[in-house]
Amino acid sequence: MLDKNIQSDVTNIAEVMVQVGVRAKTAAKALRSASAEKKTAALTAMADALWQNRQLILDANSIDMETAQETGVAPAFLDRLKLDEDRIQAMADGLRVIADMPDPVGAIIAEWEQPNGLKIERVRTPLGVIGVIFESRPNVTADAGALCLKSGNAVILRGGSDSFHSSRAIHASLVEGLEKTDLPVDAIQIVPTTDRAAVGEMLSGLNGAIDVIIPRGGKGLVERVQTDARVPVFAHLEGLCHLYVDKSADLEMAITIAVNAKMRRTGICGSAETLLMDRAAADTHLVPILKALQNSGCEVRGDNEVQNAFSETKPATEGDWHTEYLDSIISVKLVDGVAGAIGHIEKYSTNHTESIIASDETAVDQFFDGIDSAILLHNASTQFADGGEFGMGAEIGIATGKMHARGPVGVEQLTSFKYQVRGSGQTRP
Amino acid sequence: MLDKNIQSDVTNIAEVMVQVGVRAKTAAKALRSASAEKKTAALTAMADALWQNRQLILDANSIDMETAQETGVAPAFLDRLKLDEDRIQAMADGLRVIADMPDPVGAIIAEWEQPNGLKIERVRTPLGVIGVIFESRPNVTADAGALCLKSGNAVILRGGSDSFHSSRAIHASLVEGLEKTDLPVDAIQIVPTTDRAAVGEMLSGLNGAIDVIIPRGGKGLVERVQTDARVPVFAHLEGLCHLYVDKSADLEMAITIAVNAKMRRTGICGSAETLLMDRAAADTHLVPILKALQNSGCEVRGDNEVQNAFSETKPATEGDWHTEYLDSIISVKLVDGVAGAIGHIEKYSTNHTESIIASDETAVDQFFDGIDSAILLHNASTQFADGGEFGMGAEIGIATGKMHARGPVGVEQLTSFKYQVRGSGQTRP
Repeated sequence: MLDKNIQSDVTNIAEVMVQVGVRAKTAAKALRSASAEKKTAALTAMADALWQNRQLILDANSIDMETAQETGVAPAFLDRLKLDEDRIQAMADGLRVIADMPDPVGAIIAEWEQPNGLKIERVRTPLGVIGVIFESRPNVTADAGALCLKSGNAVILRGGSDSFHSSRAIHASLVEGLEKTDLPVDAIQIVPTTDRAAVGEMLSGLNGAIDVIIPRGGKGLVERVQTDARVPVFAHLEGLCHLYVDKSADLEMAITIAVNAKMRRTGICGSAETLLMDRAAADTHLVPILKALQNSGCEVRGDNEVQNAFSETKPATEGDWHTEYLDSIISVKLVDGVAGAIGHIEKYSTNHTESIIASDETAVDQFFDGIDSAILLHNASTQFADGGEFGMGAEIGIATGKMHARGPVGVEQLTSFKYQVRGSGQTRP
Repeated sequence: MLDKNIQSDVTNIAEVMVQVGVRAKTAAKALRSASAEKKTAALTAMADALWQNRQLILDANSIDMETAQETGVAPAFLDRLKLDEDRIQAMADGLRVIADMPDPVGAIIAEWEQPNGLKIERVRTPLGVIGVIFESRPNVTADAGALCLKSGNAVILRGGSDSFHSSRAIHASLVEGLEKTDLPVDAIQIVPTTDRAAVGEMLSGLNGAIDVIIPRGGKGLVERVQTDARVPVFAHLEGLCHLYVDKSADLEMAITIAVNAKMRRTGICGSAETLLMDRAAADTHLVPILKALQNSGCEVRGDNEVQNAFSETKPATEGDWHTEYLDSIISVKLVDGVAGAIGHIEKYSTNHTESIIASDETAVDQFFDGIDSAILLHNASTQFADGGEFGMGAEIGIATGKMHARGPVGVEQLTSFKYQVRGSGQTRP
C-alpha cells in the first residue's frame, strides 16, 4: 500500500540520516569487490523489474501528480514530474545501456616499472559513497542509482518532495535487482523523508560517510549545495555557453551551428546564450546568422552596433551578458577577433562550454589555449556538451570545477584509484 | 638589509591576503600559457640564484636559528631549521631536477573520435592557485615553489614563523629566476607576515582565489587545515603503515624488508608502524624477524601471543595499534592469514601505505583487492611510498583522500584538464 504520509514516521532526522550513512559505508565496502558480472546482472534485473512494476510506479506517480496539481505548479514542472509507459521504458533502456558499458573498477589506468624492478600500477577504485540531491524528475532515481552502482559506489538519493512517491516506487525496483543478485540492498538507498533537514545532514557529510555530493537540478539547488556542502561537490552552477564566429568562419556552417547551439533545446546547460561576432566579418556574417536565429523563433538582444546592423534587435543590458536564459533568447556582441572573444568570455563565462567557428587553425589554437572552460569546441554545436555525445555512455551531470571531475561526469569520473606495487624484496637505500 | 621585524608592517591581515590572492590569480592566468622552455629557464635561473645568494640565505638563517635557540626548542627542530652550504646546494639541485622533468601542461591525456567525426582531446591544464602551508623546514619554499611553477600554477607560500627570514631569503632567489625569464613575479608569493591570522585567511580560500591547499608539516597543522579549510586539501594526516608477513613469505626477505620498512628512517610517513604476522607461520618467522628488529635498535611491543613467543616484547595496549610512532618502536600482532590482516588494517589504517610479504600470488591478490589504501606493496618496503621512488621526479606530499590526487603528489597531480573538441560543422540531432 502506498501511504501518502509515510515520511511523517521519521522524527529524528539527524539520527536517521547517520544510520543511512553507516549503511551506505557498509554497502560501499562490499561493492568495492563486487564483480563486473554481478553489477551487470543487477542492472539488467533492475530494468526488468522497472517494466514489470510499471503499474505500481504509475500509481505512485499519480499521487505525486495530484498533489502537484492541487498546489498549482507550472505546466513545465508537471511535465518533468509526469511518468508514462514510454518514460518507464526509456528508464529501463537507460539501465540496459549502463549495464552493457565496460566496468571501470579494477581497470589499470597506468603502469610502469622503476629501474629497481618495482612494478607500479595505478588501478581504478570506487570513490565510496555518493550523495545525489535532485528535484522533480523521478527518472534521476534510476539513472543516478545505476551509474553509481556501475562505478562500484553506494549512493544515497534524496529526491524532491514533489516526486517522493514516484522516486520510492522506482527505487523499489532497483532494490529488487540488488536482491536478485545478492548485492547489498543498501547500495542504493533513498532518503525516507521529505523533510528538508535531511539535505542539510547530507551536506554535512553524515559523519564522513559521504565522499561526494552531486546536485541535479536548478540554480537554486546547486547554489545551496555549493555554498553549504562540507564535502566535495561535482556540479555546474550555470552553463553560460558562448559561440564565437571568427572572420574565417564558413558562413553556412556558422548559421547552421548557431541555430542548433541556441535552439535545438533551449533549456539544457549546453545551449548557447551569447553569440560573439568577429567585427572583421560583421558585414558579411552578422545579419544572415541573426535572421536565421530569428526565423527559428529566437529573440535577439544586442549592443548598439548589433542594433544598427539588424533592426529587430532588442537592446542588451549589462545583465544580459551574465544571463543563462534557458529560453529562446540570445545576446549578441561584436568583438575584435579571438582576443576580443577571449576577453569577453573570461569576464562572463561560467567555465562550462565555449565554441569557435573558424577555418583559420591559428585562431582555433588561440581560442583553445586562451580559455580554461571545461569544454572547448571547434566548428561544432555547444549542445554536444554531454556525456552521451562524448561517448561516455551516460552522465550523472557536468562539472565545471577543476578538481577530480571536469566536463561530463560518467562512470569513470565517479572513481578514484590506488597504486599497486609489486617487488621482489626491494628495500629503500 | 634583513629586518627582524619586517612582519610588523602588516596590520590588516585580511586585506593584505585578499590582495595576495588577486595577484596570484592574475599570475596564474599568465602561467597557463607560459611555455615549457620559459618555465625550465626560470627554474634553472632560480637554482643559479640560490647558489649565488647563499651567503645572504645563510645570514637570514642565522637570525632564525638565534631566535629559535633563545626560545629553547628541541635539537630535532633546530636541525630541520638549519641551513648550510650543502643544504643550499641540495635545494638548487632539486630545482634542476624539476627543471629537467617533462612539462605536464598541454599534454594530451586521452583522445578519441566519435562516430559523427568529432575529435575529442582531454588536455592537461594547471589547477590555478595553490596554497602551501608549512612549518620549520625552509627548503619547502624552493621545492613547493618549483613544483607549482612547473605545473603552471601560481603558489602562495606560508612558512612557519621560525623560518620566516630563511624562507624570505630563499624566496628572493626564486623571484630573481622569475624576473630573469619575464614570468610574473607573483607566480611564487610568500605571505609577508608571521601573523597566524594569515593561515585562517588562506583556509577560507581568499575569496575563491585558492584552488587547493597543501599542508606540509606535523599532525597538528594537517588536522587544523583539514578541519578548517573551505577549499580542497591534498594531505595525509598520518602514515600508520602496516607490514603483513604471510605464511608464504620468504623468511630472509621478510627480515630484510621489515628492518628497512621500520628503521631506514623512522620519522617519515612511509615507515612501518605495525607488523602483522600470519599465525600459520609464527613458529618459524616471528622470532627471527623480531630479533632482527631489536638488533637494529627497535623496541618491540606486542599482544600476549607475541610476548610469549619473544620474551623481550613490551605489552601493547589498544592505543599502540592507533599510534604512528615516528620512532624506533613497532607494534606486533598475530593474525589469521590475509583475511585477518585485512580486518586489522581496515580498523586501524590511515589509508596511506600497506605492504604484504608473500610468495603466494592468491594471497597478494586478496590483499590488494581487499584494502583501499593509497599505496599497496608486495615484497617491498613501505618506505618506497615517495614520489621520487615512484618515478615522479619529486613530490609535494602524499595524499590519502580519494578525490583528485592520491598517493604521491607530483607535478601531474597538480594539474586539471579540459576537453578540446574539433569538428567539421557538426550539429546535434
